[in-house]
Amino acid sequence: LVTARHELGLRSETIRRTNLASIVRGLHLHGPLSRSELVTRTGLTRSAIGALVGELATAGLVSEERASSGGSPGRPSTSVRVEPLGGAVLALEITVDSLAAGVVGLGGGVIEASRIDRVRGRFSVEETVADLTELARDVRARAGADDALIGIGTAIVGMVRRRDGFVALAPNLGWRDVPLGGLLTAALAMDLPLSVANDADLGALAELRRGAARGARDLLVIWGEVGVGGGLIVGGEPLTGAAGFGGEVGHLPVNPAGATCGCGSVGCWETEIGEGALLLRAGHAPGGGRAAVDAVLREAASGVPAALSAIDDLGRWLGVGLAGLVNVFNPDRIVLGGLFGRVHPFVAGTVRSQLQRHALWPSRDAVHVVPASLGADAPLLGAAELAFEPLLSDPAGWLVARSAPAAAVA
Amino acid sequence: LVTARHELGLRSETIRRTNLASIVRGLHLHGPLSRSELVTRTGLTRSAIGALVGELATAGLVSEERASSGGSPGRPSTSVRVEPLGGAVLALEITVDSLAAGVVGLGGGVIEASRIDRVRGRFSVEETVADLTELARDVRARAGADDALIGIGTAIVGMVRRRDGFVALAPNLGWRDVPLGGLLTAALAMDLPLSVANDADLGALAELRRGAARGARDLLVIWGEVGVGGGLIVGGEPLTGAAGFGGEVGHLPVNPAGATCGCGSVGCWETEIGEGALLLRAGHAPGGGRAAVDAVLREAASGVPAALSAIDDLGRWLGVGLAGLVNVFNPDRIVLGGLFGRVHPFVAGTVRSQLQRHALWPSRDAVHVVPASLGADAPLLGAAELAFEPLLSDPAGWLVARSAPAAAVA
Repeated sequence: LVTARHELGLRSETIRRTNLASIVRGLHLHGPLSRSELVTRTGLTRSAIGALVGELATAGLVSEERASSGGSPGRPSTSVRVEPLGGAVLALEITVDSLAAGVVGLGGGVIEASRIDRVRGRFSVEETVADLTELARDVRARAGADDALIGIGTAIVGMVRRRDGFVALAPNLGWRDVPLGGLLTAALAMDLPLSVANDADLGALAELRRGAARGARDLLVIWGEVGVGGGLIVGGEPLTGAAGFGGEVGHLPVNPAGATCGCGSVGCWETEIGEGALLLRAGHAPGGGRAAVDAVLREAASGVPAALSAIDDLGRWLGVGLAGLVNVFNPDRIVLGGLFGRVHPFVAGTVRSQLQRHALWPSRDAVHVVPASLGADAPLLGAAELAFEPLLSDPAGWLVARSAPAAAVA
Repeated sequence: LVTARHELGLRSETIRRTNLASIVRGLHLHGPLSRSELVTRTGLTRSAIGALVGELATAGLVSEERASSGGSPGRPSTSVRVEPLGGAVLALEITVDSLAAGVVGLGGGVIEASRIDRVRGRFSVEETVADLTELARDVRARAGADDALIGIGTAIVGMVRRRDGFVALAPNLGWRDVPLGGLLTAALAMDLPLSVANDADLGALAELRRGAARGARDLLVIWGEVGVGGGLIVGGEPLTGAAGFGGEVGHLPVNPAGATCGCGSVGCWETEIGEGALLLRAGHAPGGGRAAVDAVLREAASGVPAALSAIDDLGRWLGVGLAGLVNVFNPDRIVLGGLFGRVHPFVAGTVRSQLQRHALWPSRDAVHVVPASLGADAPLLGAAELAFEPLLSDPAGWLVARSAPAAAVA
């Protein structure tokens, strides 16, 4: 059943464009599919699929190859796949302690990527943009795919206005009111559309499309690093909020008697489950970063009481906050990433019993809590997905736009 | 720009159906529109609008009338409007202290409605279904529109599985695991589709379509009665969660040193801002209901310190929890309903200063906090909208379904 939830009408030329998009998106997300599988997935006729695939092949976005018939009778099936260089993207990431860049082909395969660590601290915007531009230049040179690039996606640990890539606030970088979209566009000078979004949101998008959240419709992804970020998927669509600032689950108030938070409030969830809280409770200096967290995990594995107790505290607070989010979102899946993915084996039981105690049972019984599967590169992969989105949503429109400048020259 | 976010293809017969839906939805939500306004809203051509409106008029869903030309030259414009009896719905509501029923016409006008108060307490499911069925019979008899009825929508103060109207939990009614959808369908014996949803969710839908939240895309509606419920709109679409249990904002954990909640957890937001907390702090018995709350408000208006202090406490906790939700949802609007709408004049300043203190500024600066505008009938109006949805989403499909039994008889 097709349902129209909106007031916008459909014009007939939209059909072809929408159907081209359905095919490209399906192949991009699921890998090679036979024409029969495309018929099943899209609900279109075999002849419509044939014509559309032909059009996409002519445009260089997909290719077809005879699959081996495996000795079975009947005509051999044809496998359709995206051409990775039919449209590649540049993905960038700015975290508290690293910069990353990658070139990713249509279909999601990483062609070339690189990450450089930075000592945690407050880097100037200028320095960061310059370093990231240089890193991107290296990666592009190694990838040798500049001709295929169609867009740039950027993940940053901060609150981003999606419309123009304006970073309103990035506390852990010490940034406020940074027009990052404009600065990166100017510094890269690549004449390609550039988007910027919050790293937790993009990590969630990557886990949804290619990781532990595949198939989820209502999803919470909770990332723990220096701060605590959330990426939320509601009814299959990313929750961005009105401007793009949504998902800041680390700043849910959970403890009026708690510590002052970096955001200026008191008792935010982040003050109970962030890296700093874990390290302090385990008797380590709070600024030790990932290496210090790993030390606590090793101590816990060998039975050091302070480490075990610190991890148990984290698990209890993690469970309390997740219970609240389960009550509000009724998710089918929760993915724990970063720090929370690493402590998952230690805290899974505690989290489960806290959900049992604090979450309403109808929602609690439906949710699966799993660790993230894409590792630290999830936000970078999500940044690539962000950059692919215009092509995936309207490949025909994108092809027209691409050919326009060339036509003007000719 | 049309973008396809999904993998499902479009068949050409879908265009007509989608465009019919766009027109019916537009007229249902906005009232009479001229053909020119329909052209602007839908993006379709004038001739397409003419043909589609003609088809809807033949089916009895809309009618056209010459609007007065107001003395201006040129051809007089034609005003298109829905026919209220082109498809009416029965709306039902079960609250802690009342039952309500209404017959609502296409376009949202209430043809007939009635509410009966019940003493607060635990009513059996059988008693409730019988009383509601009788109330519905009265209202239907007075409306005299049974031939026009196309569906039944039901709001209930509980957690509802949308798929089949199964009430998993309704703590304030003392219900658990009640197959309400099936029971009401059997008792009403009307041979019409029946849907059930949470009252706070439906109140939010009504405020979005016809009340204080009109035009919002990212919306929080917080209702205070005995319990605290939330209705959330994310990117223009209602948040239901995986099964329909989402939106239980009253059960966000905000105070580990707080009171035990009816849900079994501790320090839920509801224990700090619910009716019981207000009454207790103001020195009243906690079970006094709406009349007792109104007494507190009168005391506050005349300067009674305990009442003022109780309302101030409520305002502070209301602001703290809203700050967390603002951080997570980045809404463009917050609507305060029920108890919170009534105390809004007293707490607006406190809520604003708490948001200032506890919410991240990029999200805080974008949000408007306003009282609800539809009053206590909002969930009933939302139940009507729920029942209209199949017709609004696919009027052509609905017309075919309606004519099918008649064709079988002929």
